[in-house]
Amino acid sequence: MDSLDRLIAEFAKLPGIGRKTAGRLAYHLLQQPRERMAMLAQALTDVAERVHPCVECGSPTEDESCAICRDPRRDASMVCVVEEPSALAVLEQSGSYRGRYVVLGGRLSPLEGIGPESLRIDLLERRLTSGDVREVILATNSSLEGEATATYLQQVIARYPGVAVSRLARGLPLGGELEYVDGVTLTHALLAREALK
Amino acid sequence: MDSLDRLIAEFAKLPGIGRKTAGRLAYHLLQQPRERMAMLAQALTDVAERVHPCVECGSPTEDESCAICRDPRRDASMVCVVEEPSALAVLEQSGSYRGRYVVLGGRLSPLEGIGPESLRIDLLERRLTSGDVREVILATNSSLEGEATATYLQQVIARYPGVAVSRLARGLPLGGELEYVDGVTLTHALLAREALK
Repeated sequence: MDSLDRLIAEFAKLPGIGRKTAGRLAYHLLQQPRERMAMLAQALTDVAERVHPCVECGSPTEDESCAICRDPRRDASMVCVVEEPSALAVLEQSGSYRGRYVVLGGRLSPLEGIGPESLRIDLLERRLTSGDVREVILATNSSLEGEATATYLQQVIARYPGVAVSRLARGLPLGGELEYVDGVTLTHALLAREALK
Repeated sequence: MDSLDRLIAEFAKLPGIGRKTAGRLAYHLLQQPRERMAMLAQALTDVAERVHPCVECGSPTEDESCAICRDPRRDASMVCVVEEPSALAVLEQSGSYRGRYVVLGGRLSPLEGIGPESLRIDLLERRLTSGDVREVILATNSSLEGEATATYLQQVIARYPGVAVSRLARGLPLGGELEYVDGVTLTHALLAREALK
């Protein structure tokens, strides 16, 4: 297989990109100056080499701790738990949240063999043990597995007295994924979050 | 800008990929084993370094001449002229053409400053001068610029007596791009091609 076919095959592995779109992307890059491909390759290499989960919250960062965890202006009394970094990115873009995060790195899924030990629940517990946290917002997706993950986390947090637990308001479309929601809906869902205990 | 933001920015430069999709792609890759990013980066680097236009027809290849130009079973009496390598790929997938190609590398577009000298018309003329060619199929897109390019090429080919010129049959949707057409329609359009002189 020559390199152009390999490039198309690699593009086609990406989510939402079929064989035809993969071809279009590769042929598009072929028509661009060679630096364009080199820059994309370099960005990929840099991300692969430098980016790893923040030791405090699990979000992707090039440093030991991410910029949000290092920012003293962020409210340490609030922790928002999300499944993936993409959800964190959408919340940050909405500008409606000034607390901290825990990025689980997935959701409970017995069918896929993803149990609590596969998620970064230890980071949430470390934050809870510190005693700073007064509220945890469970911002897992509004899917079946996201709801199950939230229910599980609610039981974990119940062991820490004095910590309120909330869930994003049901402004989210049922079965919807957080990263597709527009900022206004998300802001509303955040403001109208429902207390769970 | 850190490497993750750079990667998202590079993805967002690709056609049909907006900022949100670019983020999804980057976050998806972050969740995969690091080798996936390395393989995509390597494929990009290899294409950038190794792939260049075939000296005979202009299609992308890692060798001096492409596999089609080197294949003695391909009919040298027929030349199919396409705008881009993607169109060549679709024609090859349809399996209905056994001649040779010339890949122009674009279309005439006075507004974008693309004149005949920017296209690989020299490769077409070289094939015509060889005396092997009996028919040229003009398979430029069915867009305004594609039609203008075909008309221009028809005049060029008129200088070579005994060479028939045809255009893909109007089975193509008007304004449509070749690479989006399904194989059956394309086969039909190829079989019902219309003689221009």
